Amino acid sequence: MHALIVLAHPEEKSFNAQLAADAREALTAMGYTVETADLYRDGFDPLEDARHFSSRADNAFFSAMIEQRHASDTGTLPTDVESAIVKLERADLVVFQFPLWWWSVPAILKGWFDRVFAWGRVYSSGKRYPDRGHFKGKRALVSVTTGAPGLAFGPNGRAGDLDLILWPIHFGLAYVGFSVLPHFASFEVVKGPNTDPDTLRTRLDGYKAGLRAHLGAIETLEPLKFNTTADWDETGRLRPTAPSYSPFIRHVA
Amino acid sequence: MHALIVLAHPEEKSFNAQLAADAREALTAMGYTVETADLYRDGFDPLEDARHFSSRADNAFFSAMIEQRHASDTGTLPTDVESAIVKLERADLVVFQFPLWWWSVPAILKGWFDRVFAWGRVYSSGKRYPDRGHFKGKRALVSVTTGAPGLAFGPNGRAGDLDLILWPIHFGLAYVGFSVLPHFASFEVVKGPNTDPDTLRTRLDGYKAGLRAHLGAIETLEPLKFNTTADWDETGRLRPTAPSYSPFIRHVA
Repeated sequence: MHALIVLAHPEEKSFNAQLAADAREALTAMGYTVETADLYRDGFDPLEDARHFSSRADNAFFSAMIEQRHASDTGTLPTDVESAIVKLERADLVVFQFPLWWWSVPAILKGWFDRVFAWGRVYSSGKRYPDRGHFKGKRALVSVTTGAPGLAFGPNGRAGDLDLILWPIHFGLAYVGFSVLPHFASFEVVKGPNTDPDTLRTRLDGYKAGLRAHLGAIETLEPLKFNTTADWDETGRLRPTAPSYSPFIRHVA
Repeated sequence: MHALIVLAHPEEKSFNAQLAADAREALTAMGYTVETADLYRDGFDPLEDARHFSSRADNAFFSAMIEQRHASDTGTLPTDVESAIVKLERADLVVFQFPLWWWSVPAILKGWFDRVFAWGRVYSSGKRYPDRGHFKGKRALVSVTTGAPGLAFGPNGRAGDLDLILWPIHFGLAYVGFSVLPHFASFEVVKGPNTDPDTLRTRLDGYKAGLRAHLGAIETLEPLKFNTTADWDETGRLRPTAPSYSPFIRHVA
């Protein structure tokens, strides 16, 4: 078994980096070979634009989707994108380690999604959703850190329900075929002006042990549920007989 | 009245750029002065990291929040960030124009949020939410384009309910004090292999007229509802007496 850890944090000694290193150790102990894509250290360019495409479908007008499709068809995807896709293709498990910034991933990881999940090579209208996606059979797992405490991210918390905040990210992973495991969250990891260092250290150590335990359970963790191709009618709406797994895609009267 | 249009699309002739130009014209005709922050053309750097901070709270460890706070306190925020904040401060209305990529904003706009909405200068625990946020009294409006058709983004659509997909973005704007107006969406704007050019042109012209009409109605559009400071108890959870406006922050049994 082989795992890829995608790490998105600017500080190489960050708690996110420590969790990524711990995950690597834990997975290695479980018999995985592991590689890490450290997006900041690798200098990943998050900006999708014309610079990346050597052969163009339309030299006069840059559409990200059209050029991704053309580059996929002609084998001219940018080298860093193709390399990232190959890393995903050889992984059985992909762990995304990042801090929650403005209720989403940091820009460097957002740009990784924008560029690496390329129309054509990675998805198309006939190659998407958990049943037909390119990465079908592989697991993905989000490990996220936050500045605010856990209660703030509960269903009635002032920062919003973390399960729903992560839905767009999880749905994107399911869209390209991943079996998405429940996320692991480390709350309140930023040292505030009144944070006692020992309290913080104990908390962080607890989360490190928690992530190891979470990874140790991946064989038994139930993946999140998403609709599959047959659940949509010809207009792209949920069939009355299909299940609803989230407020994001629900039955309407 | 003064408006700022924040545009995030790599192609200068894109439909997004055309909508931004139309919005500028429409707002000018309404008596606004208007400036545009064209993030790609301006070369905005979306990566939050140590390079941007000349004076550091901690030279040995980069925390985005801690360094934003320190730079805010010492007047050493990066020039491009301070300039973006000043543009926001002089605007009565901010329009965000972007394509929906992977159920969120493009990386360049995500990084703009990551860097410009700086802890200290823009928000703090005592300076947030619509009642106490830094940009209180200003309006914000999202104008988003999609590749998939409108039905796919309905409550039972295969792409997910657009109102919920935009919640993390809208909530972030409300968090820094904006009065968030209902979004405007232009669906199915990408030229597919089977798209009839005349059909697409007619559709795009309709959306241009629609955005102008939407902007023409900003004085009467009802802002989205978000909870304010008094709605949270001392643990950061919704008081039983406070209203719930979204599944993201809801009452639990």
